[in-house]
Amino acid sequence: MNYCSHCGAPLSFRIPPGDSLPRFICDQCGTIHYQNPRMVIGCIPEWEDKILLCRRAIEPRHGFWTLPAGFMENGETTAEAAARETLEEASARVEIGTAFSMFSLPHINQVHLLFRARLLDLDYAAGSESLEVELFREADIPWDTLAFSSVSNTLRHFYADQRKGSYGFHVGEISAASERI
Amino acid sequence: MNYCSHCGAPLSFRIPPGDSLPRFICDQCGTIHYQNPRMVIGCIPEWEDKILLCRRAIEPRHGFWTLPAGFMENGETTAEAAARETLEEASARVEIGTAFSMFSLPHINQVHLLFRARLLDLDYAAGSESLEVELFREADIPWDTLAFSSVSNTLRHFYADQRKGSYGFHVGEISAASERI
Repeated sequence: MNYCSHCGAPLSFRIPPGDSLPRFICDQCGTIHYQNPRMVIGCIPEWEDKILLCRRAIEPRHGFWTLPAGFMENGETTAEAAARETLEEASARVEIGTAFSMFSLPHINQVHLLFRARLLDLDYAAGSESLEVELFREADIPWDTLAFSSVSNTLRHFYADQRKGSYGFHVGEISAASERI
Repeated sequence: MNYCSHCGAPLSFRIPPGDSLPRFICDQCGTIHYQNPRMVIGCIPEWEDKILLCRRAIEPRHGFWTLPAGFMENGETTAEAAARETLEEASARVEIGTAFSMFSLPHINQVHLLFRARLLDLDYAAGSESLEVELFREADIPWDTLAFSSVSNTLRHFYADQRKGSYGFHVGEISAASERI
């Protein structure tokens, strides 16, 4: 961040009065440009004893499998974001259920939130960001080629909870060291 | 948003190739400036049968009561954000517990996330953004002068769950119409 997006003047980087962290500040118009984490939201689309995974057609982790998820947009709710991303990446219609997992990734300023979801029909197909979309039984989950730790952790909790017969809400952290990429 | 924060050139607002929503785009350096919701994170600090509320010294809702909460910063986890905001606004040390409520506020591009928390000592005091900080029993909660719907909804769920003897994770939406302000 070099220039003020409001007035175009060069920015300085310092702690504003009354604040405790350095921010990008415009000395011309006074705007303080805060930078905050972004939410990546998706779901676990369930159909009988299977779940729907997408193989990524984009970087990072091109060619690896993931749950449908992506950046939450302005103007939507968390559940709407999960349903929209599932429609975009897997052309799949889901009924969003309970929130299931939330992982902080402080090294990349993201929070990953996954919901349980019910796949409403089998008319899914690869969206523009997916190479293929497929239903997997637990025994067939491609654990070694999952794209992200938030996905593998979520699926491990999901099958553990399924065996217990009770689904919780799982909150955790994924550090740079524990991330697969 | 008028100018590119990377190179300083004027921005245009249009749908990038392969996207579905209009974005601020720099035609000089090619940067696409995405805008995404921000997370406001806090907690319900509990001490015996009381919880800690802060009376706001800043707008919006100056003079109204709220749970300690604020914008999540880059480089921290959701639980760290909740503890930091509680320290800043109430000079209070807490042990963050389970996630308790999450409200989407699509009209202002925010997600409010509140954790349960255990207040560790009684050495709390008003931080620079608070006029006063006080412990309240349920019967004394200032329902009519609470600052935000996410706070009043969270506290209603909290006391309902307390009576049930079991605390859930509550996900919901607060629309412009249902917001108090």
